[in-house]
Amino acid sequence: MEINVIKAGIIGATGYAGMELVRLLSHHPEVSLVHLGSRSFEGTPYVDTVGSFRDATDTYICKNATPRELAPECDVIFLALPHGIASQHIDEDILKSTCVIDLGADFRLKDVDMYQKWYGVKHGSPHLLSKSVYGLSELERDAIASANLIANPGCYTTCSILTLAPLVQAGLVSRAETGTKPLPIIIDAKSGVSGAGRKESQASHFCETNESIKAYKIGSHRHTPEIEQYLQVISGNPLAVQFTPHLVPMNRGILVTAYIPLQSEQNPAITTDDLRDLYISLYKGEKFIRVLPKGVFPETRWVKGSNFVDIGITFDERTRTIVAVGAIDNLIKGAAGQAVQNMNIRFGFDEAASLDAIPLFP
Amino acid sequence: MEINVIKAGIIGATGYAGMELVRLLSHHPEVSLVHLGSRSFEGTPYVDTVGSFRDATDTYICKNATPRELAPECDVIFLALPHGIASQHIDEDILKSTCVIDLGADFRLKDVDMYQKWYGVKHGSPHLLSKSVYGLSELERDAIASANLIANPGCYTTCSILTLAPLVQAGLVSRAETGTKPLPIIIDAKSGVSGAGRKESQASHFCETNESIKAYKIGSHRHTPEIEQYLQVISGNPLAVQFTPHLVPMNRGILVTAYIPLQSEQNPAITTDDLRDLYISLYKGEKFIRVLPKGVFPETRWVKGSNFVDIGITFDERTRTIVAVGAIDNLIKGAAGQAVQNMNIRFGFDEAASLDAIPLFP
Amino acid sequence: MEINVIKAGIIGATGYAGMELVRLLSHHPEVSLVHLGSRSFEGTPYVDTVGSFRDATDTYICKNATPRELAPECDVIFLALPHGIASQHIDEDILKSTCVIDLGADFRLKDVDMYQKWYGVKHGSPHLLSKSVYGLSELERDAIASANLIANPGCYTTCSILTLAPLVQAGLVSRAETGTKPLPIIIDAKSGVSGAGRKESQASHFCETNESIKAYKIGSHRHTPEIEQYLQVISGNPLAVQFTPHLVPMNRGILVTAYIPLQSEQNPAITTDDLRDLYISLYKGEKFIRVLPKGVFPETRWVKGSNFVDIGITFDERTRTIVAVGAIDNLIKGAAGQAVQNMNIRFGFDEAASLDAIPLFP
Amino acid sequence: MEINVIKAGIIGATGYAGMELVRLLSHHPEVSLVHLGSRSFEGTPYVDTVGSFRDATDTYICKNATPRELAPECDVIFLALPHGIASQHIDEDILKSTCVIDLGADFRLKDVDMYQKWYGVKHGSPHLLSKSVYGLSELERDAIASANLIANPGCYTTCSILTLAPLVQAGLVSRAETGTKPLPIIIDAKSGVSGAGRKESQASHFCETNESIKAYKIGSHRHTPEIEQYLQVISGNPLAVQFTPHLVPMNRGILVTAYIPLQSEQNPAITTDDLRDLYISLYKGEKFIRVLPKGVFPETRWVKGSNFVDIGITFDERTRTIVAVGAIDNLIKGAAGQAVQNMNIRFGFDEAASLDAIPLFP
Repeated sequence: MEINVIKAGIIGATGYAGMELVRLLSHHPEVSLVHLGSRSFEGTPYVDTVGSFRDATDTYICKNATPRELAPECDVIFLALPHGIASQHIDEDILKSTCVIDLGADFRLKDVDMYQKWYGVKHGSPHLLSKSVYGLSELERDAIASANLIANPGCYTTCSILTLAPLVQAGLVSRAETGTKPLPIIIDAKSGVSGAGRKESQASHFCETNESIKAYKIGSHRHTPEIEQYLQVISGNPLAVQFTPHLVPMNRGILVTAYIPLQSEQNPAITTDDLRDLYISLYKGEKFIRVLPKGVFPETRWVKGSNFVDIGITFDERTRTIVAVGAIDNLIKGAAGQAVQNMNIRFGFDEAASLDAIPLFP
Repeated sequence: MEINVIKAGIIGATGYAGMELVRLLSHHPEVSLVHLGSRSFEGTPYVDTVGSFRDATDTYICKNATPRELAPECDVIFLALPHGIASQHIDEDILKSTCVIDLGADFRLKDVDMYQKWYGVKHGSPHLLSKSVYGLSELERDAIASANLIANPGCYTTCSILTLAPLVQAGLVSRAETGTKPLPIIIDAKSGVSGAGRKESQASHFCETNESIKAYKIGSHRHTPEIEQYLQVISGNPLAVQFTPHLVPMNRGILVTAYIPLQSEQNPAITTDDLRDLYISLYKGEKFIRVLPKGVFPETRWVKGSNFVDIGITFDERTRTIVAVGAIDNLIKGAAGQAVQNMNIRFGFDEAASLDAIPLFP
Repeated sequence: MEINVIKAGIIGATGYAGMELVRLLSHHPEVSLVHLGSRSFEGTPYVDTVGSFRDATDTYICKNATPRELAPECDVIFLALPHGIASQHIDEDILKSTCVIDLGADFRLKDVDMYQKWYGVKHGSPHLLSKSVYGLSELERDAIASANLIANPGCYTTCSILTLAPLVQAGLVSRAETGTKPLPIIIDAKSGVSGAGRKESQASHFCETNESIKAYKIGSHRHTPEIEQYLQVISGNPLAVQFTPHLVPMNRGILVTAYIPLQSEQNPAITTDDLRDLYISLYKGEKFIRVLPKGVFPETRWVKGSNFVDIGITFDERTRTIVAVGAIDNLIKGAAGQAVQNMNIRFGFDEAASLDAIPLFP
Repeated sequence: MEINVIKAGIIGATGYAGMELVRLLSHHPEVSLVHLGSRSFEGTPYVDTVGSFRDATDTYICKNATPRELAPECDVIFLALPHGIASQHIDEDILKSTCVIDLGADFRLKDVDMYQKWYGVKHGSPHLLSKSVYGLSELERDAIASANLIANPGCYTTCSILTLAPLVQAGLVSRAETGTKPLPIIIDAKSGVSGAGRKESQASHFCETNESIKAYKIGSHRHTPEIEQYLQVISGNPLAVQFTPHLVPMNRGILVTAYIPLQSEQNPAITTDDLRDLYISLYKGEKFIRVLPKGVFPETRWVKGSNFVDIGITFDERTRTIVAVGAIDNLIKGAAGQAVQNMNIRFGFDEAASLDAIPLFP
């Protein structure tokens, strides 16, 4: 049934997200992987950079082609590149002949000024921002199905938005009185080290991260505007997010702990059950979202190696604060897995194709 | 100069806090360690339970004596026991002849009902609660100097209170209008696994904690009332704390990330510098508290193996939220180190005696 | 095509090997999982013991049935039990109606005295030892295909034997002169903590194993006679193994480093290429064995989450010593994966069914 | 008593060994630290590169001076540099006015050709090789006491030699018959990641080393000739070492497992007690060497943070193989600690000054 097979290329195949794309697509029943791109390893056999693929990808040699060069031979091109590059290489011609799924940040923010302020680089193709579809699979399924430029969300973003969407949709956030700022939603996020990428740096040296935890980029992490932008769309109102990422000595996983203290006049009789119902209702039928039983909260070990999002929710009556906790594997649902999910939606495949792995524990 | 040497006993010497007491006191110039207590290892040479002490403590055999039995021969008795036990073994007779430093929870809360509600056990000596001094060294130095019953604070508590005290003292918290509840201070805390003790359990099995992070006891951790009780004393007003502990795959260390969103009418012109000044002012001359430079935040690796508390503070103008971050070694400043510091204060020794180790990195 | 589906039961499904069996079999196209057995968790929903399976196995409740009770409804029964139990529960009646694959030690050694000496328990069914087939898939494929009692090899054993078999087969070991003992093959093995099982113990407490490495059971580990027994069958001569296991602070993985110093008169002109040829020849066509290129050696990260065995080999001319290094995932090729591989062989399925996962890195 | 204080400079103070020197010397009662050298961080406050030293070394700014420039003001200069640099900067003039303790490899091997072959660089001052003293404190104490050029041994080397010295001294190794090569001593060594230095590289990236173990530089690690050279001096006979290092996912620690299979005619009646007696005899009175009780073997956690060497020894009668296991903290006894110990010997201080820390566990 070769007829249904699409051809896929990956630009940036030797980083962690790229490797994960190769792993997932290697077994995809409807995808033929035709290009593993790497600028740094051009000409090198792929297995020499990632030993896990020995045998499976023995025949691949890393090449260095641009999206323009790949477009004619690929039905879908995945970009797993540092920010600022993709926007210089994508144009409408390319998007006419192929579908681009960008795992980077260039097409996520709709406001080019906001992009340039937070990322500190000039955007190479601002006219494409309005054409890009935000690839949060569960919440943008219909738009994704017909998009040729899909901006795959950031890892922290995916976990934060899915953990908060039902609450925001239900209006359970601080709203600003006229002329004042709303109180922010507090998002305290924790990530494994693979989130920082595979590039060598002293900050990701084993001995500098092992046996330690730290907060970083407090109030300045680039996923902040992305989370705010999308939650505002859901909310329909201005809304603020206080986002603090932390680095945890583990390979994979993101845990988001979000806090919404209710003001005294808000929802006097709300309960944990009410909150759980919001999640169950919004995520009904979603194969990859697991709303946990009351009193059970996510642990990253239970999602590692899978495309699952685990969410637990409680209302602390003593302090009248909503605490929502979400967990994902940052390289799968937070990157490559969601990219494949988006591809599956876009090409009409089974949405779970290649993504049905049960988490690997321990 | 044998004249200045006091005799110390440790009940619970084979747990992590107890071992750390042995380590610190072994080198203390004014302390002679006369009793290493362990119920489970009675009769066993101490080095057979903790190989690091070979040679240093070769002559010690674990014994199992009660505080009453130890009192006559000890100037100070350290208790490193699960909650509920100390309160059954301490009475005024014992306190007349010796100083008790309790690393457990029994004498920390002033309200016996609150104790019994949060700990779920009956308190064995409620009449002693008013006599106990809360052993937060930097903030209770004078009271500690003359106390015979010192309730050493919890690990999360120590880090949380020291990270927040200057803000609370300055009134920078949500205050309740009449008839309403104040918005809580959000404390998102992260701890290494040694905080859970040395006792075997599936929850602390290597494979169950390694490569994972989770929140636990959301809204119900027993350090919550302890933090609230003490911050209220500082504040002079009712105040609420939303406390969420997390388990991090590392041996030692606590990181506290605390959030205080300012309401619109509060402190319109406040800056990060203003906040840092509060810390510098309150902690001036404190040898173990390091208020970090602006823009620098704590990492547990920089305090591991030491009695230091590192604190970083920022005001996020975008969201008008104060973010304060603190780090300690949970077994030292969060347990044994602070206990020794309290002993030093109580007996008039150099407050840093045995506690001047530079952190061990990496 | 229900006709091809066999029914499988697992006794001991909540340990690490058992969980891995559930994970692998959940996706097996020809297997229906009908029983998840657990004595300790009888009556508990399976997902409450292993959160990774939420949704996937939501309907399973742990039961506690014996092999005899399961035999009528199961085509294959996997036993993942501590040693000494299986031999008391298996008899010829059971083996007439079902195939038993035992992941434990009871049916691996052919000599009942040796079993009783090394394991310190009485064997419950010594008459079955001659009927059991040693389940080292690549080397016993034909016997496995028709066996009803398959003794799945130990994790260290699998890795050690496969790493050494081509050398032993070629006679590259020390042979004893008449009346003397041969010099042993030195096997220095390193394992992740999951090899010690999921049962709680102080020895597997996170803080007791993290940030440390140790050798254990030097000269007395129970996989020693198993390795010797099988290598002697390959060799046809008496042969000794010096086996030293080490505990490494990681979840999964076994690395075996084996040394064979050649005596002065042996093989004067041998080269690394000669040795590699022995491996390539013996393992030709083996899907799960990857003989690495010259100069490349195994790392457990490249096999984690897969059924692969990676093997590197070199001849150090300076010392005239053969160094062979092998790596497996102890829970997959070292336990559950090989058990499924054996089931596939036994029932005529594709040998790689359910086992084609690419390693999960990082 | 300022009169006894010597002045010390460190060149290479921001690497792991250099940091450890700063930590140890900061508390040394007879040493004043006058220079923290760093080429990469010249002009930077030292605490900005190593946060653990905040307050303790707040006044230090990294400088970049040569040994020649430092010699006039320093009584002792520690070099913690990559190989090949020290030999270009040290000459007899410098050694006339100051004592140089080199933690690098340049002055360890006595044979300049062997150095140039194994290290692949030209030696800058071969005439100094005969003047350098090998700084293995316990075995070269007398020579160290009057040396002005001390070659501090490598980390693997220190652990390997001390673990094997009593056996080699007693002649318990394979001796070559005329015209043949001796069978090698097998040394299988395991190290934490700090052994690879602080410099960024993909190989020491957290995700590339965490959750994995590998052998590396099999038969070609540069500590091999150093071990052989020194053991031959002890033995008085030619002798070969098969040395295989492994990388373990932990910050600190080296474990050496060494194997000596006895040939059939050797020492027919030898016992474990006999072997222990050799160790006890050679290391009698050594404060930093702990010969463990029979049946107890080293674990790196019991020496972490200390200058201890733990050694366990057994004779496996079944295979007639001696197994000796040693453990050190690679940054202390394997680097900075031994350097300070050598300085103490050289300047007539208490040999344990600054080195009496009890290991930090957990």
